[in-house]
Amino acid sequence: MQKPLILVTNDDGITAPGVRNLVEFMNEIGEVVVVAPNSPQSGKGHAITINSTLTFEEISLEGPQSDYSLSGTPVDCVKFALDKILTRKPDIVVSGINHGANSSINVIYSGTMSAAVEAGVEGLQAIGFSLLDFSWDADFGQAKEFIQEIVLKTLENPLPKGVVLNVNIPKLEKDKIKGIKVCRQAHAKWEESFDERINPHGKKYFWLTGYFNNMDSGSDADETALADGFISVVPVKFDLTAHEHLEQIAAVLNT
Amino acid sequence: MQKPLILVTNDDGITAPGVRNLVEFMNEIGEVVVVAPNSPQSGKGHAITINSTLTFEEISLEGPQSDYSLSGTPVDCVKFALDKILTRKPDIVVSGINHGANSSINVIYSGTMSAAVEAGVEGLQAIGFSLLDFSWDADFGQAKEFIQEIVLKTLENPLPKGVVLNVNIPKLEKDKIKGIKVCRQAHAKWEESFDERINPHGKKYFWLTGYFNNMDSGSDADETALADGFISVVPVKFDLTAHEHLEQIAAVLNT
Repeated sequence: MQKPLILVTNDDGITAPGVRNLVEFMNEIGEVVVVAPNSPQSGKGHAITINSTLTFEEISLEGPQSDYSLSGTPVDCVKFALDKILTRKPDIVVSGINHGANSSINVIYSGTMSAAVEAGVEGLQAIGFSLLDFSWDADFGQAKEFIQEIVLKTLENPLPKGVVLNVNIPKLEKDKIKGIKVCRQAHAKWEESFDERINPHGKKYFWLTGYFNNMDSGSDADETALADGFISVVPVKFDLTAHEHLEQIAAVLNT
Repeated sequence: MQKPLILVTNDDGITAPGVRNLVEFMNEIGEVVVVAPNSPQSGKGHAITINSTLTFEEISLEGPQSDYSLSGTPVDCVKFALDKILTRKPDIVVSGINHGANSSINVIYSGTMSAAVEAGVEGLQAIGFSLLDFSWDADFGQAKEFIQEIVLKTLENPLPKGVVLNVNIPKLEKDKIKGIKVCRQAHAKWEESFDERINPHGKKYFWLTGYFNNMDSGSDADETALADGFISVVPVKFDLTAHEHLEQIAAVLNT
């Protein structure tokens, strides 16, 4: 039997420890091709490169996989891999492991998750993985068996059409992780605050900062599961239609 | 009575005819503040600027509104306006008018719609407008009364929590537009194709191109409404959870 073909990408850049760990875990499951950004792309959401051009190169990194570094966004990487690099359709696309959480509303800002969503739009099985630890030397090892389990189960039991998975892993030692919980996206938002500074030429400039405000303590919310020590899995869709409100809005606009 | 405060943004840049038309239409309804990108930001999706800094300036353009030009993405513009420019909460945020369609799956790539979604995340009323005409000198005038009507009705009848509107306008003369239709997002995708070229130094580079593949002829889909000569209005949500599949996925992952 042919080994599954696994496309790996991320948003922290092709050399980030998070993606190198994910590649190592996937090498034990299938044939791995990595197409990932050549620079950090955090917070790029579903951006694509249309007003400038892209370049790529094959690079040599440890392991049996092939590695291609692209000058674009995570979503560009998925599109480019499918059109220019892969010679057959991948069995699954995995993105990450992100250095930092992509739970709750962060799914819409996340390059990691946008790559997975793009793969879903392409009709592929796709999962984004994130660890709740921003540090470059975070310990991704404790998540290995959970990640492999989720990927293997998804290969065996394909996701419903139009759905990809958003997996977040708490920053805990392996034996402290309580298990996997399928959740809904918590209701939360960033309270932004721009940090104002003055450049050497006297002009104001700003850094986007803020704090994450979770407004949702529901037992079925991803933030709750993570706080309780579970790995959260949110099925994410890209039909953004608020079907439940179509009639109400039609009643207003069609009078 | 205080006039409604209307925040206007877009993704084609603050001087694009589409946003200047929208500003003109909104000046007849309320007090208008424009915070828009200083450069084209098409296809930026929900990108935010976290690895570099932002600058802004107040610029002087025709009309009674205030105009602020920001060095960031459309989503940055909404965040920056709320934190640094506006002195009270806007009654509504309008984005566009985009030069080109944002119907169907384009909602996830669109900077125009991502600005509206960000406003929704902030708990504000928000609408994105797009005209099915990519040209810089497109005629936005025929949409004036429809756009004003949608904004006024939304101010009078607030949208359900967690919902913003994605409005697309067909490229038709005013008396050929058949009316407004509330729709769902059509099932469609881009079939990408990267156009390969060689630079003067002999290195390959690529332009992202492709064609739009509508796979959905449902009478309730936005693409159908537009093809039939209607203005399409899709209520868009940002809880991306596939609630209808939670149990099925839990059954797979929790065994």
